[in-house]
Amino acid sequence: MGNKLYHGAAWYPELWEPAVLEQDIEQMKQAGINVVRIGEFAWSAMEPTEGAISLDFFVNVIQQLSASGIETVMCTPTPTPPIWFTHGHPERMYVNEQMQVMGHGSRQHACTNNAVFREKAAIITEAIAKAIGPLASVIGWQIDNEFKAHVAECRCQTCLHLWHEWLAERYGTVDKLNEAWGADIWSERYLSFDQVPQPNPAPFLHNSSLSTMYQLFSYEKIAEFCDEQAKIIRKYSDAPITHNSSVAFHVDNERLFRDLDFASFDTYATWDNYPNYLLNNDLWRNFKQGRDFWIMETSPSHAASLESYAKPHPNGYLRAEAVAAYALGAEAFCYWLWRQQRAGCEQPHGSVLSTWGKPTVGFANVLEVAEARAAIEPAMLSTRPRQAEVAMTYSDRAKAFLKTEPHQKLNHRALVTDFYERILHTGLHRDVLPEGSSLDGYKLLLTPFLPHISAEFLERAIAFVERGGVWVVGPLSGGRTEEHTLHTDAALGRLEQLAGAETVYTFPMDGTGSIGRAFGAAEPLSLWSAVFAPQDGAVAVGTVEGGLTPGLAFLTEKTHGQGKIVLLGAMPAGEQLLSALIVHYADEAGVTVRTDVTKGTIVAPRTGEDGDVWVVVNMDGAGGRVTLPAAGRDAVTGEAVAAGVLKVARYAYKVIRFEK
Amino acid sequence: MGNKLYHGAAWYPELWEPAVLEQDIEQMKQAGINVVRIGEFAWSAMEPTEGAISLDFFVNVIQQLSASGIETVMCTPTPTPPIWFTHGHPERMYVNEQMQVMGHGSRQHACTNNAVFREKAAIITEAIAKAIGPLASVIGWQIDNEFKAHVAECRCQTCLHLWHEWLAERYGTVDKLNEAWGADIWSERYLSFDQVPQPNPAPFLHNSSLSTMYQLFSYEKIAEFCDEQAKIIRKYSDAPITHNSSVAFHVDNERLFRDLDFASFDTYATWDNYPNYLLNNDLWRNFKQGRDFWIMETSPSHAASLESYAKPHPNGYLRAEAVAAYALGAEAFCYWLWRQQRAGCEQPHGSVLSTWGKPTVGFANVLEVAEARAAIEPAMLSTRPRQAEVAMTYSDRAKAFLKTEPHQKLNHRALVTDFYERILHTGLHRDVLPEGSSLDGYKLLLTPFLPHISAEFLERAIAFVERGGVWVVGPLSGGRTEEHTLHTDAALGRLEQLAGAETVYTFPMDGTGSIGRAFGAAEPLSLWSAVFAPQDGAVAVGTVEGGLTPGLAFLTEKTHGQGKIVLLGAMPAGEQLLSALIVHYADEAGVTVRTDVTKGTIVAPRTGEDGDVWVVVNMDGAGGRVTLPAAGRDAVTGEAVAAGVLKVARYAYKVIRFEK
Amino acid sequence: MGNKLYHGAAWYPELWEPAVLEQDIEQMKQAGINVVRIGEFAWSAMEPTEGAISLDFFVNVIQQLSASGIETVMCTPTPTPPIWFTHGHPERMYVNEQMQVMGHGSRQHACTNNAVFREKAAIITEAIAKAIGPLASVIGWQIDNEFKAHVAECRCQTCLHLWHEWLAERYGTVDKLNEAWGADIWSERYLSFDQVPQPNPAPFLHNSSLSTMYQLFSYEKIAEFCDEQAKIIRKYSDAPITHNSSVAFHVDNERLFRDLDFASFDTYATWDNYPNYLLNNDLWRNFKQGRDFWIMETSPSHAASLESYAKPHPNGYLRAEAVAAYALGAEAFCYWLWRQQRAGCEQPHGSVLSTWGKPTVGFANVLEVAEARAAIEPAMLSTRPRQAEVAMTYSDRAKAFLKTEPHQKLNHRALVTDFYERILHTGLHRDVLPEGSSLDGYKLLLTPFLPHISAEFLERAIAFVERGGVWVVGPLSGGRTEEHTLHTDAALGRLEQLAGAETVYTFPMDGTGSIGRAFGAAEPLSLWSAVFAPQDGAVAVGTVEGGLTPGLAFLTEKTHGQGKIVLLGAMPAGEQLLSALIVHYADEAGVTVRTDVTKGTIVAPRTGEDGDVWVVVNMDGAGGRVTLPAAGRDAVTGEAVAAGVLKVARYAYKVIRFEK
Repeated sequence: MGNKLYHGAAWYPELWEPAVLEQDIEQMKQAGINVVRIGEFAWSAMEPTEGAISLDFFVNVIQQLSASGIETVMCTPTPTPPIWFTHGHPERMYVNEQMQVMGHGSRQHACTNNAVFREKAAIITEAIAKAIGPLASVIGWQIDNEFKAHVAECRCQTCLHLWHEWLAERYGTVDKLNEAWGADIWSERYLSFDQVPQPNPAPFLHNSSLSTMYQLFSYEKIAEFCDEQAKIIRKYSDAPITHNSSVAFHVDNERLFRDLDFASFDTYATWDNYPNYLLNNDLWRNFKQGRDFWIMETSPSHAASLESYAKPHPNGYLRAEAVAAYALGAEAFCYWLWRQQRAGCEQPHGSVLSTWGKPTVGFANVLEVAEARAAIEPAMLSTRPRQAEVAMTYSDRAKAFLKTEPHQKLNHRALVTDFYERILHTGLHRDVLPEGSSLDGYKLLLTPFLPHISAEFLERAIAFVERGGVWVVGPLSGGRTEEHTLHTDAALGRLEQLAGAETVYTFPMDGTGSIGRAFGAAEPLSLWSAVFAPQDGAVAVGTVEGGLTPGLAFLTEKTHGQGKIVLLGAMPAGEQLLSALIVHYADEAGVTVRTDVTKGTIVAPRTGEDGDVWVVVNMDGAGGRVTLPAAGRDAVTGEAVAAGVLKVARYAYKVIRFEK
Repeated sequence: MGNKLYHGAAWYPELWEPAVLEQDIEQMKQAGINVVRIGEFAWSAMEPTEGAISLDFFVNVIQQLSASGIETVMCTPTPTPPIWFTHGHPERMYVNEQMQVMGHGSRQHACTNNAVFREKAAIITEAIAKAIGPLASVIGWQIDNEFKAHVAECRCQTCLHLWHEWLAERYGTVDKLNEAWGADIWSERYLSFDQVPQPNPAPFLHNSSLSTMYQLFSYEKIAEFCDEQAKIIRKYSDAPITHNSSVAFHVDNERLFRDLDFASFDTYATWDNYPNYLLNNDLWRNFKQGRDFWIMETSPSHAASLESYAKPHPNGYLRAEAVAAYALGAEAFCYWLWRQQRAGCEQPHGSVLSTWGKPTVGFANVLEVAEARAAIEPAMLSTRPRQAEVAMTYSDRAKAFLKTEPHQKLNHRALVTDFYERILHTGLHRDVLPEGSSLDGYKLLLTPFLPHISAEFLERAIAFVERGGVWVVGPLSGGRTEEHTLHTDAALGRLEQLAGAETVYTFPMDGTGSIGRAFGAAEPLSLWSAVFAPQDGAVAVGTVEGGLTPGLAFLTEKTHGQGKIVLLGAMPAGEQLLSALIVHYADEAGVTVRTDVTKGTIVAPRTGEDGDVWVVVNMDGAGGRVTLPAAGRDAVTGEAVAAGVLKVARYAYKVIRFEK
Repeated sequence: MGNKLYHGAAWYPELWEPAVLEQDIEQMKQAGINVVRIGEFAWSAMEPTEGAISLDFFVNVIQQLSASGIETVMCTPTPTPPIWFTHGHPERMYVNEQMQVMGHGSRQHACTNNAVFREKAAIITEAIAKAIGPLASVIGWQIDNEFKAHVAECRCQTCLHLWHEWLAERYGTVDKLNEAWGADIWSERYLSFDQVPQPNPAPFLHNSSLSTMYQLFSYEKIAEFCDEQAKIIRKYSDAPITHNSSVAFHVDNERLFRDLDFASFDTYATWDNYPNYLLNNDLWRNFKQGRDFWIMETSPSHAASLESYAKPHPNGYLRAEAVAAYALGAEAFCYWLWRQQRAGCEQPHGSVLSTWGKPTVGFANVLEVAEARAAIEPAMLSTRPRQAEVAMTYSDRAKAFLKTEPHQKLNHRALVTDFYERILHTGLHRDVLPEGSSLDGYKLLLTPFLPHISAEFLERAIAFVERGGVWVVGPLSGGRTEEHTLHTDAALGRLEQLAGAETVYTFPMDGTGSIGRAFGAAEPLSLWSAVFAPQDGAVAVGTVEGGLTPGLAFLTEKTHGQGKIVLLGAMPAGEQLLSALIVHYADEAGVTVRTDVTKGTIVAPRTGEDGDVWVVVNMDGAGGRVTLPAAGRDAVTGEAVAAGVLKVARYAYKVIRFEK
């Protein structure tokens, strides 16, 4: 890894005859595939009965691939324990929130915290690492597959026991738990840790602390399992390890990737939701900073299962996706899947080849990607993505808080994507930054939808402000404590002092006729909102008109150190206000990494020893244009490109190199 | 009680530090709060481990309040049994209709019929009554909290056993049950009472009798628990006892309040559903006739939980609500809650103070209520609501019948509110009258949505008619027997003879193109309907045009004694016909307690030794007007008011005193 | 049977007093009822305690009916086992897909595979057959009632065991099962048959083979139960046996009727869905070819239960339904039910008499049916329905495949009805033909929505083509193997070779902007689609414009033998294209049994020794017309009718006899 751009596919050699495998490999070469991922569901092929492990088949397959110049990412097969593990063992299975015990026959049906599961998973993974680790063409590892994609927090008896241990560790005494959770409410108070329930069926909602902590417990436990597995692999292999995750799964990605070597994600965003696709790239680049990420799975055309299908991509879109990914920091762009499934429950899913070995409707697009990959590889390998000066905070812990407290069916991913899209369309280059990331090098930090702002985060953000940064906080940020209770000193706790604004009221603003006016725009305000009275030198930048609180501020700013803290108390529901706000503070903060690219087209700025590179990609199929600040050279054709307006056609891309 | 208007709030002193409590009490005084309700969820604070009861904290709190001139309504804490009661005891827990056993951690999680629950509830309530009963400032009691708000009919084994006992008592022999329920159908027939199931999961619907009787059984059992608790309190206290109920809960309010001392309700109707708010007032006034009711809970601004929120009230609406309530017979107008919850699952709910002790968005409205309360108190205390001459029948047993047989997702509350609203907008003063109430003093009785008309009710209604009353029956009234079967002599049983009309057909009229014409209006007819052939001197007042039954009557009347029986077979779907019908029969019946008030504004007529008082309140925020029949005096300002048109501004009120 | 047209009703004499029964019989005669169906829910009346069987009551009732000239269809009462069977025996009960065990009190609550159930069912049925079989007026038998109407595939332990047996029989070895199902996917692989689960709750979808096979297993088992029961009856009675089924139930009707004597169905299609009503007639005629079918249940006006109701029929529609049924091959047209239920859960259901013994809103329509029945009987008895030349394939196995793989909530019945309606409105006389039926005599075969085309079916269809037939296959046909996996040689397997077209791609076409152009029409294409490249002499008849695959064919044809194979790869979403296609190929195939009847009116052609009869019925209430090819005679009035245009009024009918 690290010396080429990868173009890959997931492959299930254990499901096909040898002749098919040969044909597959031949066609991979023709399609420009240089890496495959294998093994993640193959436990029963590797260990058909308990203890009878043989990995010869996979060793052979990897060697066959290698002989054709194709490298391998090897997976552990733990999402699908075999029947010898599950049969007759309901106590090993996942239990859902309705207390239903899962049966064999899908995936993620086992509880990953079950001790026997952990033991058997360790055995198979050690065997794989030992057998496959030495193979030179194995360039990386993937642990398991899409943790917690189909399931969330298990309610089995093992989890109940571990939950009690986790609570004991977190709180020390049950009285501290009671106090932290406000458990005197509704006589919830526990006398010992082993009385604390899982958030199982109840007549009404559970205590918010219980609901959120159970999610954080589950987040930690799945990461712990991942760490255990990685440790085993590292005994036998130096190849880097990842997991294919997503913002949609019930995991804390920042924690999950902490002890892994590189970050990767799966994405099935449809073409008309390209902002979400870009958000993923801008986020995953930052889970392992300085190290390229992988797109481990995406469809050549459409996602589907027996029960659903997505709209297939228009022709041309796939290449736009791939080029955008490489430009934004992806080392690999991989399909799920190479050859369409003939059985199971995902037969209708898009693939590169059909079950009968012919090109699919996406195939021509795959060839376009192969060509583009090769064309841009030199420019990509000689540069790296520029760090943005604008960052938007991202937190999967916030996702847990919002699952506990969705107000009105709020969805974390949709909220975050919506906010991100406002930044995207301004033409500002941006990072989506995990909560725990360093803020060095940024000028504008936007922190929406973070119900709990940790003391640590607050320190870091304030330091950032003191150094000259502008920090925009909100909406829906800061109003909850670490324990998912409310602050009792001020709506936003200590943040209010720093921001120089008192939260006068918090309430649901939707439908109250409240209009926010700022930066020359006036839009209805929405979501659970806070309205402020500036003090201590802070000023109201946006004021509410009408509604219940006319004249109060929904937007304040205060100079702090060299920078500013900006509180945003409500979500402007229109198209103008939030964009204007972002541009305004980007200007104030002196953000320069930005372009005047038209909406629907992106510029990914990269930098290297020999100068900068801009990758311009049209994502919306309408074509677009961008103004080049200087003359450059088309890195693909080698032709000179003049300064000034550059047009890109529908789903087209340009790689412009600016000499130093 | 009985000598002031109360303005109160629910308060949870067990959740806060002493300093907060002092601050709270101080602010209560400033906000004009003169009563607080405490204790309803505090079981674990009172009895943290089984048998270790201490009530000193609550005694002290009540004394602190009293010292500041604030009286107390004390609650029993039985909705939230502590962990020592629930842990390890699934057999004590509520079982829902999917047969899921509830866990600890919300409220109403225990089965209120469980013998151990009853025993432990009796112990804690007796301890409370003993300790708190002697305190002079305890002016009333509330048993438990919102019975059956989150749950309905429990399916636990205790309930199964009690159900069999209840059936044995009701039917004597199982053969009588079989006959009453028509249990030969589908071979349901039981050989002994202990074979009769609860209405648990089945491939299709249960027998209507089983479904309805199980609800009536549950109604009776929860009232029985309430009675048991009240009896214990009365051993130690003379203060009156209530329960905070609602039409939305799975209880029979008439039965529930039968042995309590005063009636109270909780309401979270949004401002644009003010007719439902008024319906509640017009109904609760009649559960304990001659005794003022309490609004025990309403929000200063909006209801909310972790998962939802309502639109907050516009400024001004809260005072309109309060004045309307006092005028319509409320002795108290109380908020839920005083200080916003910092934990649990209702943190976003509207309150008077925030968790950090500051005024909320509703606070200014609370001050307006405090001012209005004081201003109108003399006029209220010197008068009582006039009995209406128009009554609409209300029955929670009917609610059970409609839950069993919703036809097409009919909802009892929505139906009743819709019908009530038609009366409201005519300007007629009205009572919403529990099924079992005396009909003395009324001139027009409207009885819609009462599937079963009991023999007793029929006798009373007929006597009312014979004395000169007009009784309008229907739609959806009278077609079911006591056992929720059909009559076999005539669609409406004996009622048909009395009403002089034969039901020719019953069928679903929606979408058949049936138009009803009467009183100069013509509107589509809807709902499950009956069409009539008048006979025995009855006449068709409204006739169906088009549809399946052109020429038949949907509305007949017959003179009976001094009065009339009017059958209404279908629901007119427009705005005119039903209002015209109501006004027509009010005229015929000689109803005089009425005003020409504009829609959206109400007049609450009151009467006293010194004359009458009209309270005029604008409820819809559009302002309105009413014609005063005589000159009077503004009871708040003391100014003379001329006869003729009186205007009231947006959400404003006027109290006009007419001297005798 | 076989010598009259029946007009009947379902009757529940066990629920009523003797006097009511006498009144009922008297009114049946007046209403022209000549057959009643009894007994299907009466197990507890026949065997109130285990083993205590008495059938005297039913013998008497049948004799009473017979004395009034009314014949009887006797039912077995197995859908409703009595309380002595169910109480205390959860292991005998049906278990639903959420693993909930059903309780007593509805119907179909027992598992029909339970050994004790089978034993008790055999005992009661043998007793009934012995007692009732000898009665001369018993002209037929109905086994049970509406198998699998409320339930689907049971998940009890008995079924689990039988499932394993069924699998062992089907596959021989578990390795063959693993191979057939592709069970290496997701490590599903089983080591023994007894490890194969039922498709119970799992984190995501089950393997398609598992899901579909479990349905086919259930299909087989319920038919096996039916066969067992029929065998018992045949020991004592020669009267023909049927079951009242539906396309909506979870059964394979072709298999179910295989060993029964005549076919019957229940239908509650609303008047505005008359195409579905006609589809049923055109289908049921073909389950037992050459033998008239029965409509065993339909409502005189509307279907309803406690929780729902349908729009009642407009006056006149019922007669149109009845005449259409008789004309299309029904020997009987029977109501559910004679007298409205007074108890249970279907009290609001339409009936002939009310609970109080009076005519219902449908009664006048019943009299019209009685009159029409008599009027058309001679013409019907002297002719039989002409076999159509156009057939549409129907398969309940396909229904199972689509339940497993609904793509986007596709519903088999809705799809099939939609396609059928396109044929109907062309005026072509058509048969809806069970998958296994002979194709002799047909000229055009349409096979849409048949995911798996069996080898046997393919042989038969090809032979049909070779003899000169035109076979139109698709959409959604042929893409799945017998095991519900994908073909690995070509998208449509061997069919492609025969059809001379290669499937280039399959993908979801909705929303891709793909337009299909053929026969002068251009319409958006929808559903999961296949696009083709013709080869081997096949030609593209319809081509895709726009979308992902412009220029490829969605419609190809190839001459094969004397006929043609036409592949239809997508569903045209408009009104024109598919109709044009059908007419085009009907023309090509030389279809002559067709009329130019206007949309909304049908012609049912019949033929007999003395010539042909056309029954013309207006079904849509708008009236219509048809061109008579020759002069004829009105078979009801005896009047001469000229060749040329014949008009029929709203819901009217004409029976035209053309002399030989």
